[in-house]
Amino acid sequence: MKPIKVGLLGLGTVGTGVIRIVEGNQEDLSSQVGSPIVIEKVAVKNLVKARNITVDADKLTEDPWEVIRNPEIDVIVEVMGGVESTKEYILEALERGKHIVTANKDLMALYGAEILAKAEEKRCDVYYEASVAGGIPIIRTLIESFSSDRITRIMGIVNGTTNFILTKMSQEGASYDEVLTEAQALGYAESDPTSDVEGLDAARKMAILGTLGFHTNVELRDVSVSGISSVTKEDIAYAKRLGYEMKLLGIAERQDDQISISVEPTMVSQQHPLASVNGVFNAVFVHGEAVGETMFYGAGAGELPTATSVVADLVSVIRNLKLGVSGLKSISPYKEKHLIQDEHISYKNFILLHVDDKAGVLAQITQIFAEYDVSLASVVQQPNEQNPDAEIIIVTHNASKASMDKVLKHFDTLSVIRKVKSVYRVEG
Amino acid sequence: MKPIKVGLLGLGTVGTGVIRIVEGNQEDLSSQVGSPIVIEKVAVKNLVKARNITVDADKLTEDPWEVIRNPEIDVIVEVMGGVESTKEYILEALERGKHIVTANKDLMALYGAEILAKAEEKRCDVYYEASVAGGIPIIRTLIESFSSDRITRIMGIVNGTTNFILTKMSQEGASYDEVLTEAQALGYAESDPTSDVEGLDAARKMAILGTLGFHTNVELRDVSVSGISSVTKEDIAYAKRLGYEMKLLGIAERQDDQISISVEPTMVSQQHPLASVNGVFNAVFVHGEAVGETMFYGAGAGELPTATSVVADLVSVIRNLKLGVSGLKSISPYKEKHLIQDEHISYKNFILLHVDDKAGVLAQITQIFAEYDVSLASVVQQPNEQNPDAEIIIVTHNASKASMDKVLKHFDTLSVIRKVKSVYRVEG
Repeated sequence: MKPIKVGLLGLGTVGTGVIRIVEGNQEDLSSQVGSPIVIEKVAVKNLVKARNITVDADKLTEDPWEVIRNPEIDVIVEVMGGVESTKEYILEALERGKHIVTANKDLMALYGAEILAKAEEKRCDVYYEASVAGGIPIIRTLIESFSSDRITRIMGIVNGTTNFILTKMSQEGASYDEVLTEAQALGYAESDPTSDVEGLDAARKMAILGTLGFHTNVELRDVSVSGISSVTKEDIAYAKRLGYEMKLLGIAERQDDQISISVEPTMVSQQHPLASVNGVFNAVFVHGEAVGETMFYGAGAGELPTATSVVADLVSVIRNLKLGVSGLKSISPYKEKHLIQDEHISYKNFILLHVDDKAGVLAQITQIFAEYDVSLASVVQQPNEQNPDAEIIIVTHNASKASMDKVLKHFDTLSVIRKVKSVYRVEG
Repeated sequence: MKPIKVGLLGLGTVGTGVIRIVEGNQEDLSSQVGSPIVIEKVAVKNLVKARNITVDADKLTEDPWEVIRNPEIDVIVEVMGGVESTKEYILEALERGKHIVTANKDLMALYGAEILAKAEEKRCDVYYEASVAGGIPIIRTLIESFSSDRITRIMGIVNGTTNFILTKMSQEGASYDEVLTEAQALGYAESDPTSDVEGLDAARKMAILGTLGFHTNVELRDVSVSGISSVTKEDIAYAKRLGYEMKLLGIAERQDDQISISVEPTMVSQQHPLASVNGVFNAVFVHGEAVGETMFYGAGAGELPTATSVVADLVSVIRNLKLGVSGLKSISPYKEKHLIQDEHISYKNFILLHVDDKAGVLAQITQIFAEYDVSLASVVQQPNEQNPDAEIIIVTHNASKASMDKVLKHFDTLSVIRKVKSVYRVEG
């Protein structure tokens, strides 16, 4: 049987995993696709770098174009990362009729629509399961398994770095800075951790999930984002005392034909299945009108889990190729996008205030909530251990984002409030 | 666009859900498949029965053959249940070139191989996602998302009735009989609950999952089964005290090219994600060599969750039909089946003994474990509250099934042991 020839762009962690799985599971893979799969050519940054895997020297090249332009190659597996030049490689590969498997969330979040349009034009496949939540098959699940349902909500712990940091802070009472340093030493956080800790990585993944779940083209600028760098160990201690765990949660929700997508540190009820997703694990919780609550849990990153998704996509792409149905199965977003206005997004809030410790303060503050129609689930006032202020801890009932913004703006003008220490969304 | 015509066999809970979704989500569904989907004909048991849904009288028939033989119909959705006559309907429908979507685990566990062979011969699709774990897309996940990996272990809570009973027993300290009566009143257990409580339903689902996970034809007789009807509230209290929850767990595992499949009440560590799957929810935990630990959680039964899976299969079948690739995507089991011998299956065990309350008994008993090379993780002896015996609670380290059988056989001959009260597998 004529082998299927694959070109690999990138030989970092995931690329190494792809070669290991394709070579190690060759017998099973060829039983499933009906012919051998050969990694024909691999583009690397540096030919002479030491690697954890042995690859024939004549398969390696430092020039990605040599892979893209190789007429023998049927499928390009892109695991090199990067956005602008990577986009050029992918578009040119599609132009030449090659099918694509990519693990690149940045690329798909920013240029997914353009790439998928080119693929449709050229009747090529583009699969990207590994771009969100590593080994968890959430993209295939949204596209195929929930094709019958109308998704109302997707909540995801889709960034392992921040989940590792928040889990450690919660379990050990450590500070953000301490744990970030540890995560960097362990290789769980990059030396410049901004993209992870400020929520940008999660936002890109949520844009992809929102697009698939709601059949509309969610762009990165549609996602409201805040990260975890200002979360303190005190915030986490309060969360736990009230029965919550702090998680960086991506939330994509739909009300009728309007949607909203956000990423922010969120207090999740300890009863909710997402609360016990710890360390570098990822999970995606999906609620559909018909299917109700479901959750998908697994490793969100790592050489072999991510490569599992890449190679499963490769199997699908090769089977489509052999059946002659490449590029015929993708469904472009078919709905207009309408974002929910802040007046219509509502959820519970946790607010921690430092206030003057004198009579009448609590009355003034609760009066402001009443003024903007925000009702309160619980209010605790207590002396602050470190200084002469008092602390007020408030949990609201569901309140619109617009009203909460007004409350917080009003707080700015109130002299008895020394500081609005923390405000978090509360879920579950 | 020419509509796709569907014949429905059965209009019980799931059938009603299928009609609701197909009619309610028609716009989304036809955007995805490219033409309207019409439920053309519905076979029911009783034409005049009161229903929760209105269906045109001229679409209903009491004769399934009228649906099977209707030349207009492209796809048969079988949600009537039953085995022998249902098999005849399905085989005849395939003979006539109709594609099949079924939710029937009994049929697929008993005659799956025969049905899939006929489908292959006739180039027809047979999809059966809803046959295992209702709304959880575990079958598509095993077939497609983990095509690249070698599965080592599948552990499932795949029967909602027994999980409801065990959860209630655990949370309320109630007895099996009390909770079974309540489950029957709520409609969670049938008036003859044997198939659920004795583990047969779970065994059928595990045979299906084992076949897909290990690429070999697992038959019902390959599954060793025991149910929950002898689980006492005392057993559950011991489990909790030791840090476990009692679950009816299906376990399919592979060692090299040998497999074993079992269903039995199992003490699952409270730290394991399966331990917190409660009530009628289902979950399937999958471990693969590359992907590591994953878990899939959702509603295991019910009108709309199950119908979500049925209609998602219907979408796939229709898309294949339009692309001209029906029947070309199934992969028959391609590995020989080898079952693991009892000497090579090993796990931890919990054993509760009632013994004579006199000197030297514990020494005699621990001597027997030593004789068969079973090492012990913990041993507690305590007076029994109800009678003059003493209780001994033992948790072993991993021990082979064969050795444990010898230990228990030896116990039969030992006069100081009044009764072997309980023996359970321990996981996690």
